Amino acid sequence: MAFETSRLLGFGDCDPAGIAFFPGYMRLLVSVTEEMFAASGMPWPAMIRERRIGVPTVKLDVDFVAPAFHGDELDFRVSIARLGGSSADLRHRVAVGERTVWTARQVLVATSLESHRAIRWPDDVRAGLAAHLETNDARDPAA
Amino acid sequence: MAFETSRLLGFGDCDPAGIAFFPGYMRLLVSVTEEMFAASGMPWPAMIRERRIGVPTVKLDVDFVAPAFHGDELDFRVSIARLGGSSADLRHRVAVGERTVWTARQVLVATSLESHRAIRWPDDVRAGLAAHLETNDARDPAA
Amino acid sequence: MAFETSRLLGFGDCDPAGIAFFPGYMRLLVSVTEEMFAASGMPWPAMIRERRIGVPTVKLDVDFVAPAFHGDELDFRVSIARLGGSSADLRHRVAVGERTVWTARQVLVATSLESHRAIRWPDDVRAGLAAHLETNDARDPAA
Amino acid sequence: MAFETSRLLGFGDCDPAGIAFFPGYMRLLVSVTEEMFAASGMPWPAMIRERRIGVPTVKLDVDFVAPAFHGDELDFRVSIARLGGSSADLRHRVAVGERTVWTARQVLVATSLESHRAIRWPDDVRAGLAAHLETNDARDPAA
Repeated sequence: MAFETSRLLGFGDCDPAGIAFFPGYMRLLVSVTEEMFAASGMPWPAMIRERRIGVPTVKLDVDFVAPAFHGDELDFRVSIARLGGSSADLRHRVAVGERTVWTARQVLVATSLESHRAIRWPDDVRAGLAAHLETNDARDPAA
Repeated sequence: MAFETSRLLGFGDCDPAGIAFFPGYMRLLVSVTEEMFAASGMPWPAMIRERRIGVPTVKLDVDFVAPAFHGDELDFRVSIARLGGSSADLRHRVAVGERTVWTARQVLVATSLESHRAIRWPDDVRAGLAAHLETNDARDPAA
Repeated sequence: MAFETSRLLGFGDCDPAGIAFFPGYMRLLVSVTEEMFAASGMPWPAMIRERRIGVPTVKLDVDFVAPAFHGDELDFRVSIARLGGSSADLRHRVAVGERTVWTARQVLVATSLESHRAIRWPDDVRAGLAAHLETNDARDPAA
Repeated sequence: MAFETSRLLGFGDCDPAGIAFFPGYMRLLVSVTEEMFAASGMPWPAMIRERRIGVPTVKLDVDFVAPAFHGDELDFRVSIARLGGSSADLRHRVAVGERTVWTARQVLVATSLESHRAIRWPDDVRAGLAAHLETNDARDPAA
């Protein structure tokens, strides 16, 4: 089940060319991913401060299909294509109305903020993320 | 011939986990690309304001290989793998000392800021970019 | 009547010291001001693109009273202390629960984006802003 | 003796109105302040990570005098008007050529990142900052 939310493309997200500044899109992507974790019972402040777990992005592939303009409402749809032992392979689709403006593949890795090494997903985080798997076959704890 | 420059990873580029915030990396990527254009005789302010040409990113694939930390000096190396009729396929390598921290493929497209449609590279811009081609065989004006 | 809205202090708004990064606060301030204009019938995209009117900030005084932390809900309250012929003197109060975390005075000036000179507020914009005046005595078209 | 450095106003620092986005100015301000500390023997990464000292801004008053445009070279001049027991009262002047574009007063407070309370400046930090005092009379360890 995909996670869905939206963001308004504001003045501060746009550039002198009058369209979205792509690093601004990446800020929105992070805030949407953070919102998905919170909505799934894994708020980042507690994960980072108390449990010392981070979820750095190790791979990011983005296709910018069409420009979006200041004032556009961006609809985000996030699902998880594959859930590994310590990784999650997210798929983002961002649309303005019916029009897809960009899509992204983002791979996150559960990481100890002490050692900066990968760790296995804690069971509760894994269960929270599993709710957003595209199919039940995509769980692969060996990865 | 690759373009090389460096950036200090500052306080404002890092996150509560103490490492680089990847949208901050993307801001640095844009500033490095802008510097490469300026160093090659194509400063963006004139391109955008006078000639109404933008170079939006249409594809971006990033591999984050290792974390970088607040205070690290990031060495950027940018080359052009392929120069099409209206596109440029850039390769970025970012290192801290000998250690690669991330690499990126970024495809830019010359675009009219009036119509938001692709245009052919103006001859002078094309010539400026061609200086950074990885090999002489990579020029392909038909693309 | 003050304008009220809220923002979650996200991962990307915080710094390696684990608290809000003040330029991140300023991004939120701009987005809140933009939301107040939109809610009052003056969306910025149309103002900027069609009417070529900007509202640059000419003065900004901020008192950071207490730190806010990643995950805090920030409640913004914006009112207008004084509405001049081409300026607006905004007062922001930002709180986490009952605790004030920062306050700001922000002076905006209606500006032609062609000449970058001050212009008088158009009547509709002025009327929209007047709804947020702290008192009826604060309207001063001579300023 | 003032600290002086410069920054290019890049594409990513500007807004859809074609001029500097003021939160972008604030990012530059932080990076300039960080550079001044580093140049004075107090690099922030060591201060923050090893000594757990932060220097949050508690007061910021900015006057935006004239717009700056994409491509402008911003010359920063920073001095310290007053150095208290745990605070520093900085004055920034930012110019494009001979033209002042903005000035700021910024008050920093030495703070424990464990307790988030003010601490007295360590002697070495105090000595480093004192090099940038406007006059020798401005040292006031009682503040």
